[in-house]
Amino acid sequence: MGATVAIAGASGYAGGELLRLLLAHPELGVGTVTAHSKAGETLGAHHPQLIELADRTLEPTTAEALAGHDVVILALPHGASAQLAAQLPDDVLVLDCGADHRLTDAAAWRRFYGTEHAGSWPYGLPELVLHGGGKQRDALPGATRVAVPGCNVTAVTLALAPGLATGVVAPDDVVAVLACGTSGAGKSLTPHLLASEIMGAASPYAVGGVHRHIPEIQQNLRLASGGADVTLSFTPTLVPMSRGILATVTAKLTGDGVDGGSVRSAWEQAYADEPFVHLLPEGRWPTTAAVLGANTAHVQVTVDEAAGRVVAVAAIDNLTKGTAGAAVQSANLALGLPETLGLPVTGVAP
Amino acid sequence: MGATVAIAGASGYAGGELLRLLLAHPELGVGTVTAHSKAGETLGAHHPQLIELADRTLEPTTAEALAGHDVVILALPHGASAQLAAQLPDDVLVLDCGADHRLTDAAAWRRFYGTEHAGSWPYGLPELVLHGGGKQRDALPGATRVAVPGCNVTAVTLALAPGLATGVVAPDDVVAVLACGTSGAGKSLTPHLLASEIMGAASPYAVGGVHRHIPEIQQNLRLASGGADVTLSFTPTLVPMSRGILATVTAKLTGDGVDGGSVRSAWEQAYADEPFVHLLPEGRWPTTAAVLGANTAHVQVTVDEAAGRVVAVAAIDNLTKGTAGAAVQSANLALGLPETLGLPVTGVAP
Amino acid sequence: MGATVAIAGASGYAGGELLRLLLAHPELGVGTVTAHSKAGETLGAHHPQLIELADRTLEPTTAEALAGHDVVILALPHGASAQLAAQLPDDVLVLDCGADHRLTDAAAWRRFYGTEHAGSWPYGLPELVLHGGGKQRDALPGATRVAVPGCNVTAVTLALAPGLATGVVAPDDVVAVLACGTSGAGKSLTPHLLASEIMGAASPYAVGGVHRHIPEIQQNLRLASGGADVTLSFTPTLVPMSRGILATVTAKLTGDGVDGGSVRSAWEQAYADEPFVHLLPEGRWPTTAAVLGANTAHVQVTVDEAAGRVVAVAAIDNLTKGTAGAAVQSANLALGLPETLGLPVTGVAP
Amino acid sequence: MGATVAIAGASGYAGGELLRLLLAHPELGVGTVTAHSKAGETLGAHHPQLIELADRTLEPTTAEALAGHDVVILALPHGASAQLAAQLPDDVLVLDCGADHRLTDAAAWRRFYGTEHAGSWPYGLPELVLHGGGKQRDALPGATRVAVPGCNVTAVTLALAPGLATGVVAPDDVVAVLACGTSGAGKSLTPHLLASEIMGAASPYAVGGVHRHIPEIQQNLRLASGGADVTLSFTPTLVPMSRGILATVTAKLTGDGVDGGSVRSAWEQAYADEPFVHLLPEGRWPTTAAVLGANTAHVQVTVDEAAGRVVAVAAIDNLTKGTAGAAVQSANLALGLPETLGLPVTGVAP
Repeated sequence: MGATVAIAGASGYAGGELLRLLLAHPELGVGTVTAHSKAGETLGAHHPQLIELADRTLEPTTAEALAGHDVVILALPHGASAQLAAQLPDDVLVLDCGADHRLTDAAAWRRFYGTEHAGSWPYGLPELVLHGGGKQRDALPGATRVAVPGCNVTAVTLALAPGLATGVVAPDDVVAVLACGTSGAGKSLTPHLLASEIMGAASPYAVGGVHRHIPEIQQNLRLASGGADVTLSFTPTLVPMSRGILATVTAKLTGDGVDGGSVRSAWEQAYADEPFVHLLPEGRWPTTAAVLGANTAHVQVTVDEAAGRVVAVAAIDNLTKGTAGAAVQSANLALGLPETLGLPVTGVAP
Repeated sequence: MGATVAIAGASGYAGGELLRLLLAHPELGVGTVTAHSKAGETLGAHHPQLIELADRTLEPTTAEALAGHDVVILALPHGASAQLAAQLPDDVLVLDCGADHRLTDAAAWRRFYGTEHAGSWPYGLPELVLHGGGKQRDALPGATRVAVPGCNVTAVTLALAPGLATGVVAPDDVVAVLACGTSGAGKSLTPHLLASEIMGAASPYAVGGVHRHIPEIQQNLRLASGGADVTLSFTPTLVPMSRGILATVTAKLTGDGVDGGSVRSAWEQAYADEPFVHLLPEGRWPTTAAVLGANTAHVQVTVDEAAGRVVAVAAIDNLTKGTAGAAVQSANLALGLPETLGLPVTGVAP
Repeated sequence: MGATVAIAGASGYAGGELLRLLLAHPELGVGTVTAHSKAGETLGAHHPQLIELADRTLEPTTAEALAGHDVVILALPHGASAQLAAQLPDDVLVLDCGADHRLTDAAAWRRFYGTEHAGSWPYGLPELVLHGGGKQRDALPGATRVAVPGCNVTAVTLALAPGLATGVVAPDDVVAVLACGTSGAGKSLTPHLLASEIMGAASPYAVGGVHRHIPEIQQNLRLASGGADVTLSFTPTLVPMSRGILATVTAKLTGDGVDGGSVRSAWEQAYADEPFVHLLPEGRWPTTAAVLGANTAHVQVTVDEAAGRVVAVAAIDNLTKGTAGAAVQSANLALGLPETLGLPVTGVAP
Repeated sequence: MGATVAIAGASGYAGGELLRLLLAHPELGVGTVTAHSKAGETLGAHHPQLIELADRTLEPTTAEALAGHDVVILALPHGASAQLAAQLPDDVLVLDCGADHRLTDAAAWRRFYGTEHAGSWPYGLPELVLHGGGKQRDALPGATRVAVPGCNVTAVTLALAPGLATGVVAPDDVVAVLACGTSGAGKSLTPHLLASEIMGAASPYAVGGVHRHIPEIQQNLRLASGGADVTLSFTPTLVPMSRGILATVTAKLTGDGVDGGSVRSAWEQAYADEPFVHLLPEGRWPTTAAVLGANTAHVQVTVDEAAGRVVAVAAIDNLTKGTAGAAVQSANLALGLPETLGLPVTGVAP
C-alpha cells in the first residue's frame, strides 16, 4: 500500500463512496476519517455497507487530525474546505470535493455563492476536451491541489464539450435538463428529501438560472469552445432514485454543413481512447442504471435537423464519476499512478 | 345515471383509469367493456383495483359490442380507432384516446405515422389558450367526436401556451425535456419496461425529433401563437415512477420589454379561472406526486434573464389529466354536463 | 353540507389525507385546521395536492381553536391527544388517530408506552369480527369518542380475525411480517427515512416484540377469538414505497378437520357483505397498489398443509383505510350517515 | 490470468452479474458466452453496464460452444442445465446456478418440480453450519461439480442455521417471510413484472407451501440441526427494488434455559470468522441497500420472549451472494484459490 488517505467529512454520502473505492484500491489506504457533528461516532453507524471499517471512529475535522497523510480528500460543504485546506502542508495532495476551488472567475463565485473567492485549483475532470487539442488531464500530474468537479457539471460537460471543441455546435443557446438521484443532495434532513416525498415524484429545483453549478459548466464549455461566452439554461429535476444523473443537453448546430456524420465524428474523436467515458453505439441511449457504482460516463448524441439542434445525453453515477471516483481518478493522476487504478468501470445493473 | 359509456380497450392502463373515473361519476355509467387479445377474460384479472367491476367480462372489440351506448371511449393503439369509429353512429359521442384524429395536417400525420390520415376531430384540451382570445373548450359542447390529446402533449402545451398566446415568448426555439412515468408506455411486454430495468434508472427514448407527439405539440403551440411556425426540440425520459409527467419547457423571451412581471401575468391570466390547471404561487415548483390520480395540472414559470429564456414546468398524471380524465372532461362538455363533474382535483400524495 | 370537521395536526401525512377525503365528502366540510410547530403557515406549504385549501392558515393546536365544530379529528403524536380531548365538549364527536385511547388494558399501555393510561374509547374498526357473532361496527352509532386503529393493526387484524372467530386457527402462535410504506412513519426528519436510504432498500425495525402495535393487535384478536390469550411475533419492514401495508400473517390450524374449504368459508362469511374488505377470488393475491388511496382492504387466505398453518394476507393503504379513511368511516357511523359516504373504494393503480 | 470461464445463459441477469464479477477477478477470465433465443446478438444489447464486453457475440448454448474452458457456469432455467452438464467433461469445473442438482432427495424434487431428478452435486453454500461442527465449505475444494444455492434459500439458511446447529431454536415451526427484489424473477416478460405494476406495490407470490425453494431450505436446515424434520412456512413478497432479499425468519426457542445471551453466542460463533457473512452489532438491523452488488450477507438476531421465538434477519443481494457471487466463491474454493478472491465485500450504498 503506497499512500494513505485521510477523509474529511466521512459520515456523508460522498465520504462513504470515497471509502468504498479506497477499500478496493491497491495503492491507496484509508487513514483518518473525520466528521463535524458526528465526530466520536463510528463509521458503522453511518455507512452500514462499510463492514470492514465499521469500528473506525470519526474524529473531529481539524487540520491536526488530517495531518500526516499523503493525501487528504475533503468532502465538506462549500466554505468549510477553503479554510481547512489553507492549514494543510503544500506538499500534501489535497482534493476538494466541494465547490470552493473550482471557479477561476472570482466575480462568478461572488455572484452565485455570495462570499469571497478562495482561489482556484487545478480542475479534476481529466476528460474535458480543450479547444485546440489536449485535455484537462494534462494539468493533473504532480498537482498537490485538485478541485473535484460538481456532479451535474461533469454530466453536462461530458455530454456537450466535444461539439464545442470541434465547432459543430454553438455555445450561445445551450439548454440542459437533468434527472438527478437524491444522494446528490446529501443527508440534509429537509422534508422534501424524505422518501415519502420523493417516491412516485418528479420535481425541478433551483430553476431559472440560480443553480450554483451554472458558472462551473460555463467555465468548462468556454474552455472547450476556445473562449466563447456560453449561454446556458440549466434545470435539474429530482427523480425517484438514490444515485444517478441523466443530463439531456441540446445546443444549436453551427451551420448547414454540419450533419449527423460530422457530429458523431466529433464525439468519437473526443472519447475514443477514454477509459471512463464511452460513446454508445448509434441508436443506444444511456441509462443511469448501467453506470451505478462505476466511474463511468455513458454518452450518446444525435442531430435533430428540424430543430436545428444536437441532443447529447450523458449518464453518470453522481457519487462515483460525479464525486468520489473523480477524486480517486485525479489522485491517481496527481500521484503518478495509472489513471484507472482501483476504479470500477462496470455498473451494478440491473 | 344519465348516460352509459362503453370502453374499447378496457384491459389496458388507460382503460382501467377510465373505469376508475366512471365509477365515481354521478351521471356516466359503465356499459360494455371490450378488449382485443384479452376478450373473454374478466376485468378483475387485469385491474385488481376495480373491485366493483371484477366480474365484468371483456367482450371482443367490435362496433356491435359498442353499439347502444350514449358514449363510446376508445383506448386503442393508433390505427385501430379510426376504423372502428367509422362504424359507429354519428349521433353517439365517440372519444378517441389514441392519436388517429388529433392532427389537422395530413402531411404531418404521414411523416410521423407512415399511414394515411383518418381526418381530424375536435380536440379535447379545453384549457388550450388560443391566439386572440378564447380557448379550445368552446369547440366541445355538442361535439359527437373528440380527439383526446396525447399525455406528453398536454403537459408541454399547458406549460408553454400562455406565453405564446400573449407573445412574451417566441415559438422558434422551444426545448422540452420530460420526466415520464412508465404507465404511459402501456402494458407492452418489452424488456426495457421491466421493473428491474426501470427502478434506479433514468433514460431517454425517441430522441432527436422522432417522437410522434411532436407534430401535435406544434399544432397546439401554433394555435396559441396565432399561426407561427414552431420549432421544437423534444426529449422524453423514463424515470422510476408508475404515473406522472414533469415537463420542463423553455422558450426565448421575445424582447427586452419582457420581464418576470409580464411573464407571470400571461400565465395568471390564462389559468386564473381554470378548475384543473393551477399556476402555483411564486417560488413553488410542481411535483408529479401532487397530481397523482387527479385531473389536475400544476404549472409554474420563471424568467432566466441570463439565458434569455422562460422556464415553464407542468406536472400531470399521464393517465388522468393526460388521458382518461381529459376524456371524461371532454365528455362532460360535449354532453352539456358541468365540466368538472365527477373528476378529482386533489392528488393522492404523498 | 351537514357537519363541519376540525383537524388537529393537519400539516402531517394523516392530516393531509383526512383533508383529501373530506374535500370529496358530501356531508362533512373542512373547518379549522391546526398544527404545532407549523402553526401560522399555510396548508399549501405542506400539502401541494390540496389546491383547493392552499391558502388556509394552520392555527395553533388548542381546544379553543377546535371549538365550535361538529367533529374534531386528532392526528397527533400519542400523549398529545388525550390531554386535548379532555378539554373538548362531551357532545362533540372526537376521533383520535393516535394511540392514546385504543387499549383497554392499562397495564399493556404502560408496558409499551411507559406513561399513564388515558382510558379507552370505542374502537373504530367496524369490520372486526367478534367471537359469537357481531362486529365492532355495532359500537359506533351515536358514539362521541372514537379511537381510530393503528395502520399495521388494521392490516393484521383484518387478515386473521375470521379464522380466530370461527375457531379454525389457533391464537397461540401467530406470526406477522409486514412490508410497510414510509408514510406510516410520518414526516419525522430522521436519516433512515431519507429517500436515498429507502430506495433500493428493505429493512426491518422494532424487531423482537417491542413494537407498540403489538398489544393492540392482541386485543383485537382476543376479541375475535373469544378471550383467548394471543401470542404474536410481529415484525414490520420498511420497503421502498410511500404508501401501503402488506401484512403476511400465519397461524396454526386448530385440528385435522380443518381444511382449505372450512378456512375459506370462515373468511367468506366474515367479509361477504363488507363494503371495504374484499376477499379476493382464489389464487389471486393482494397487492398494495390496488388499494392506493382507497378505503379498501384486499384479503386472501390459503392453507399450507405441510406447515400446518394458514397464510392470510391483507393489503391496505396505511393513510386511507389505515388511518384517515377509517376515521371518516367511523365518523359516518357515529353521525348516523351511510357508512360508505364519501369514501373511495377503487385504488389508484397502476 | 489463470483460468477461463464460459457462461451459459449470459444474456440474463445472473449471467450479467457473473460477467461483472469475472471482469474484476484477477485469476478468472471471461471465455465463451452463450444464450438461447438471444444467440447471435451482442452482450452490449443486453447488458449496457458491460462496456468492456459490449461487442462479444452470444453463441448458441451447446456443449461444443462451452468446451475448452477450465470452468463452465450454467445460468439456465431448471431442466436445461442437467442435460447440458452431462455432456461436459468430468474434469471441467461446472457450476450450476439453476436448481437441477441442489436437492439430495429425489422424491422432494419430483414433488416440487414434477420431473425426474438429475442427481445432486456438492452444494455451494460454504457458510452453511453443519450439526456437530464443520461447514459446507469443506465439501468444495477439488470439486468438479457445484450446485449453486437458490437466492431465497441462501438468505433463509444464513439467517437461521446457527440456531439450529447449536440447538437453541427448534426446527418444527419455522416461519420465513421475504421481501424480494424483482431481478430474482429474471427477464420474464410477464405483466406482473412490468415497472408500472411493481413500483408502489408489495405483493406475495407462491403462497401456501408451493414455492420450489422450500425443500432446499429444509435440506439445509436439516443439515444444520442434525437430521431433524423441518417444518417451514415460507412466503416471498415482491417489493419495489431491483435487487435484494430481506429474509425475516422466526423459530421457537427450545427451552427455558435459552436466552438472548445464548442465542447471540450461537450466531457469533457461527459467523465470527466468515469473510462474507456478518452478524451486525446488537441493535442494528440489516438493510438490503448495504449489500447491493456485494457478495455479503448481513445478519441480525434477537429473542422475543413473549412470543417464545427468535427473529433472525438476513439481507443479501440476490444476484451477488444469492447467485453469481456464490458461484465465484465456490469456484475459488474448488480451484484452490483464496475463497475471497475477486469478490466485493462492500455494498454500493446508498
